[in-house]
Amino acid sequence: MRIVGIDCGSKRTGYGVIETDGRRHRLLTCGVITTSTKHAFGERLRVIHDGLRNLLEEHSPDEMAVEGVFAAVNLRSALRLAHVRGVALLAAAQSGLPVGEYSPLEVKGSVVGYGKATKDQVRMMVSSLLGSDQDEINGSFDASDALAVALCHSMRSAGGKM
Amino acid sequence: MRIVGIDCGSKRTGYGVIETDGRRHRLLTCGVITTSTKHAFGERLRVIHDGLRNLLEEHSPDEMAVEGVFAAVNLRSALRLAHVRGVALLAAAQSGLPVGEYSPLEVKGSVVGYGKATKDQVRMMVSSLLGSDQDEINGSFDASDALAVALCHSMRSAGGKM
Repeated sequence: MRIVGIDCGSKRTGYGVIETDGRRHRLLTCGVITTSTKHAFGERLRVIHDGLRNLLEEHSPDEMAVEGVFAAVNLRSALRLAHVRGVALLAAAQSGLPVGEYSPLEVKGSVVGYGKATKDQVRMMVSSLLGSDQDEINGSFDASDALAVALCHSMRSAGGKM
Repeated sequence: MRIVGIDCGSKRTGYGVIETDGRRHRLLTCGVITTSTKHAFGERLRVIHDGLRNLLEEHSPDEMAVEGVFAAVNLRSALRLAHVRGVALLAAAQSGLPVGEYSPLEVKGSVVGYGKATKDQVRMMVSSLLGSDQDEINGSFDASDALAVALCHSMRSAGGKM
């Protein structure tokens, strides 16, 4: 099964696609869609939507996984994030993909085994689970966070455990 | 100038298109896009997006007006609303429309002259400003609220006053 994980953000939306049987996982692609704060918010949503549509078309995943939206940071950020999430869920529906939603705690718990793991620990574990060089999971944490939610989904749906 | 007003909601998204010079206004169309709670949220966003895209294609408005999102009701509702709003702003950007955003207070203040007006008062005033039969602005308040934000935008951008 092929799973795309999305880490939504209005400035940077991370994505990662994995091939998995729930126990063994392989990295297909990952990266970040960036938008400019110089552009109107709607235009930035369009860039994110276009990027996700192209990604889904190119890699034909079977399912999508995203984090839920929680007002953990602050209300304004949570509301902006929800707009981006709306566009990501739309892209999934337009490609007919079922979507799994997980809390940050569930993602870190599944991937690292510890709900309060740091982003560095998450990236290290993601890289190890995918048997991939850390360089492949590029500089930012957006891509590794996206891969983490994809891995979480694969382990949850397969009923697999670390 | 032709303005489309949108009243976002995950169950019912109202819309209204007016032709206006900032002082005289004419109703072109209005209605509601409804979605079923039986469907996944992403699928409902797809229905709203499709409906708005069709509306924009059919009526070719020059600008869009929407209410801002405020956590007035409760956080969960505000976050759901923000997803729908993301899809509406996306549709505007896909059609190259500039978007005006207004608070409920601004909308009611512009249209009724009283920021705490009831939905009934808003509908009555919308109908009067558009010189239209109240029957044209159908049963629910979603369409009249959408027309109100369009009217607010027309009066604000023209610098016109009631």
